[in-house]
Amino acid sequence: MIHAFSKAATGSFPRERWLEELKEFIRFPTVSAQASHANDLKKCAAWLGEHLRATGLENVKVVPTKRHPIVYADWLRAPGRPTALIYGHYDVQPAEPLDKWTTPPFEPAVRRDNLYARGACDNKGQMFAHIKALEFYLRSTGTLPVNVKCLFEGEEEIGSPNLPSFIARNKQALAADAAVMSDTRMLGPDRPALTYGLRGGLSLELEVTGPQHDLHSGNFGGAVHNPLQALCEIISRLHDQKGRVAIPGFYDRVRLWSKRERIYMKAAGPRDDVILRHAGTARGWGEPGYSLYERTTIRPALTINGIAGGYQGEGSKAVIPARAVAKINIRLVPDQDPREVEAILRSYVTRITPRTVHSNVRTLLAARPALVNRNHPAMRAAARAYVRGFGRAPVFLRSGGTIPVVNTFQQTLGIPTVLMGFALPDDRIHAPNEKFSLFNFYKGVATCIAFLAEMRRTGADTFARRTAGTFQTSTANV
Amino acid sequence: MIHAFSKAATGSFPRERWLEELKEFIRFPTVSAQASHANDLKKCAAWLGEHLRATGLENVKVVPTKRHPIVYADWLRAPGRPTALIYGHYDVQPAEPLDKWTTPPFEPAVRRDNLYARGACDNKGQMFAHIKALEFYLRSTGTLPVNVKCLFEGEEEIGSPNLPSFIARNKQALAADAAVMSDTRMLGPDRPALTYGLRGGLSLELEVTGPQHDLHSGNFGGAVHNPLQALCEIISRLHDQKGRVAIPGFYDRVRLWSKRERIYMKAAGPRDDVILRHAGTARGWGEPGYSLYERTTIRPALTINGIAGGYQGEGSKAVIPARAVAKINIRLVPDQDPREVEAILRSYVTRITPRTVHSNVRTLLAARPALVNRNHPAMRAAARAYVRGFGRAPVFLRSGGTIPVVNTFQQTLGIPTVLMGFALPDDRIHAPNEKFSLFNFYKGVATCIAFLAEMRRTGADTFARRTAGTFQTSTANV
Repeated sequence: MIHAFSKAATGSFPRERWLEELKEFIRFPTVSAQASHANDLKKCAAWLGEHLRATGLENVKVVPTKRHPIVYADWLRAPGRPTALIYGHYDVQPAEPLDKWTTPPFEPAVRRDNLYARGACDNKGQMFAHIKALEFYLRSTGTLPVNVKCLFEGEEEIGSPNLPSFIARNKQALAADAAVMSDTRMLGPDRPALTYGLRGGLSLELEVTGPQHDLHSGNFGGAVHNPLQALCEIISRLHDQKGRVAIPGFYDRVRLWSKRERIYMKAAGPRDDVILRHAGTARGWGEPGYSLYERTTIRPALTINGIAGGYQGEGSKAVIPARAVAKINIRLVPDQDPREVEAILRSYVTRITPRTVHSNVRTLLAARPALVNRNHPAMRAAARAYVRGFGRAPVFLRSGGTIPVVNTFQQTLGIPTVLMGFALPDDRIHAPNEKFSLFNFYKGVATCIAFLAEMRRTGADTFARRTAGTFQTSTANV
Repeated sequence: MIHAFSKAATGSFPRERWLEELKEFIRFPTVSAQASHANDLKKCAAWLGEHLRATGLENVKVVPTKRHPIVYADWLRAPGRPTALIYGHYDVQPAEPLDKWTTPPFEPAVRRDNLYARGACDNKGQMFAHIKALEFYLRSTGTLPVNVKCLFEGEEEIGSPNLPSFIARNKQALAADAAVMSDTRMLGPDRPALTYGLRGGLSLELEVTGPQHDLHSGNFGGAVHNPLQALCEIISRLHDQKGRVAIPGFYDRVRLWSKRERIYMKAAGPRDDVILRHAGTARGWGEPGYSLYERTTIRPALTINGIAGGYQGEGSKAVIPARAVAKINIRLVPDQDPREVEAILRSYVTRITPRTVHSNVRTLLAARPALVNRNHPAMRAAARAYVRGFGRAPVFLRSGGTIPVVNTFQQTLGIPTVLMGFALPDDRIHAPNEKFSLFNFYKGVATCIAFLAEMRRTGADTFARRTAGTFQTSTANV
């Protein structure tokens, strides 16, 4: 059967039908952060469960949680062979600002072989490639080469609050040799990449309050400390002038990497000019002494994601707002601990808050950084699968993003996660006009098909040895 | 007839009907800053014109402008007697944030003898007191004691862009001995105040741009300067740590007042603790060496009215926004020049903008500070009118606010403006739950009636001498 899944085989895919199905999947506005969309997530989960059943998967379950359902399905008719746990998420980021979209975010539109929509790339399009790979295998051969368990959640974009406990409660049912997910980037078109490092995340809200109610800035301007101004003053003290985070102790536990690892990164990773081109900006910024790739992967970062305060409408309004809020996101690297960083940030903010206002920090979510051994047999299987799907061996990359479940799989199930992404650097995930390359979708399906075949070639024994071995997240690749 | 307008006479006012009429006036959501309300302003202007006609005024005109109409009416049947130009504005500030209102902003509601609504105090309620004074006079006596011209605009809250040219084109038609308006504050209930100093205003938008589109803060955090953070950094450098504006040259033209004037101000003006109580905050802030009253009147101030950038919804969104905008408001004092201050701010912002982002300053409106001679006969008439309306002589106060038309009246018509306000310090103008004291409304009507009578007692000759005299805005009261 192997020949059927070669690169050339994408020609035999029912592309049009798959595209229509993917559009149907995307049309559910599954914004997990916004309570008003809860029912859309429920409907999408039901649709997904039904789709997996029609695909030929078994034991389909749509499991309610405190917020959005988890969808599970499996196919376990290959005893003695390895088991792959396919993970994905059907929830999406908020689509705001809506006026920046060329076509509406939940009305998928194809332009120049790209599919434009919120979730097209992150993560519906990429997870759908796995589902279509299973479908193609099952319809062509009536069977799968390895055992497969699918775990799709609806809370990834809000920090997966209910997934870790679900995994802990279902350790046996979810037992596998490796997890695989497609939610990371390639280096460029036809330049596949396996991600082996992820930053952790800490999302906070910093609120500054002053007067009990909004004041007229004519009558009170100059006599009352403006919470919005005080917020800016606090934020301006979170970095030094060079772009380093100025919170005392912030870098204390940041791991220093060997010269060898940094040379590897320099060879495999994107150059500064490539990162700047993808960012759409002329100049880099940040911590001295590191390349932009290093700044976004092996170095931590603190970013302001949003500020709200005062009047934001047309024209002007003479107001001193009673409160102002900033959303802060910190990306963590080994061996920073989210709770420890949270504590030092809180204490620093308290210390630098002027006595004329009050500040309050609220933690929204926290996740540890993660590393995957580049030499794990599942990683090697994925590398070979890319050669068959895209015609080229992947590079091993670190990502600046955070995928908390990678840590959960390692800690709770004891398995690594293969981060076999099909996204391109200019796919604008989390931003207006998010897109997904249709070439990458179809080649992605071919790669997923090849991954299952390569997992079988590797055999269950190899995995058993590895899994029982000395693999440790925190020292892999050092 | 004089006895009919004494304080006790408010008992004979048709209070219920007036309140219902005022509510009708307030229900028009006349937010001049928001284009979506243009038609509401048009409807309100037509209603106002009709109301003035029914009141007994003549030559009623609703004059279209590029944005919102001007309403004019007069009664000129007292030849040889003084002429009063009554000014007011029927437009209001935006009502946002809407969720902070106890009752909807354009559904006026009476609670504990206060009328709650956007515009209840600023300025519909206060200008309505003048209209009801004219009505009471005309219905009681069939005549008015002096000539009256009414000039009501719909663009005060957006800086009166079309009023100065209208006044310049109609200098003859608007000729008068003094202007009077009620759009300022008393010191407290039954503590009337005549305002003789106003700060100027300069409203600007500061925009900072960076990457061409929003970026994922995981993938790019640490390598790209965040426009929102850069905006905070710029804003944090607009003041020094003590609360003085840090723009070089900002204070160069600020007039230093005599010890005598500052002693007068200390005696007449509110104490720090009173200002803090009205502000609803425990601690003052701002320029050292001045009382809070001085900081908000004879000293300039720079305030951030709003910041918009990034994600502001529920939960978190990992985004580096492509742009961020702050609304900045500067209050100017004699002898600062708005255009000069604008120029030094632009040059300072350009200088402190990091090279990793771009900044742009847009001017929304500019107005000079104003002063009125405390000894002008119209001011003395107003002082006597307060005694009759409120039973107590007024203090002379400076205000931190800006009323550009006061300068226009002085420059173009050569007349002073009597700022005879009925607002209380806790009326929350420009903020949610704006209110107007109904006692002040009815006593305000009595005061307006008495003002017309006192203008007649003063006589046209006195005004003619004053108007031809050496009165100069910039050196009055020194």
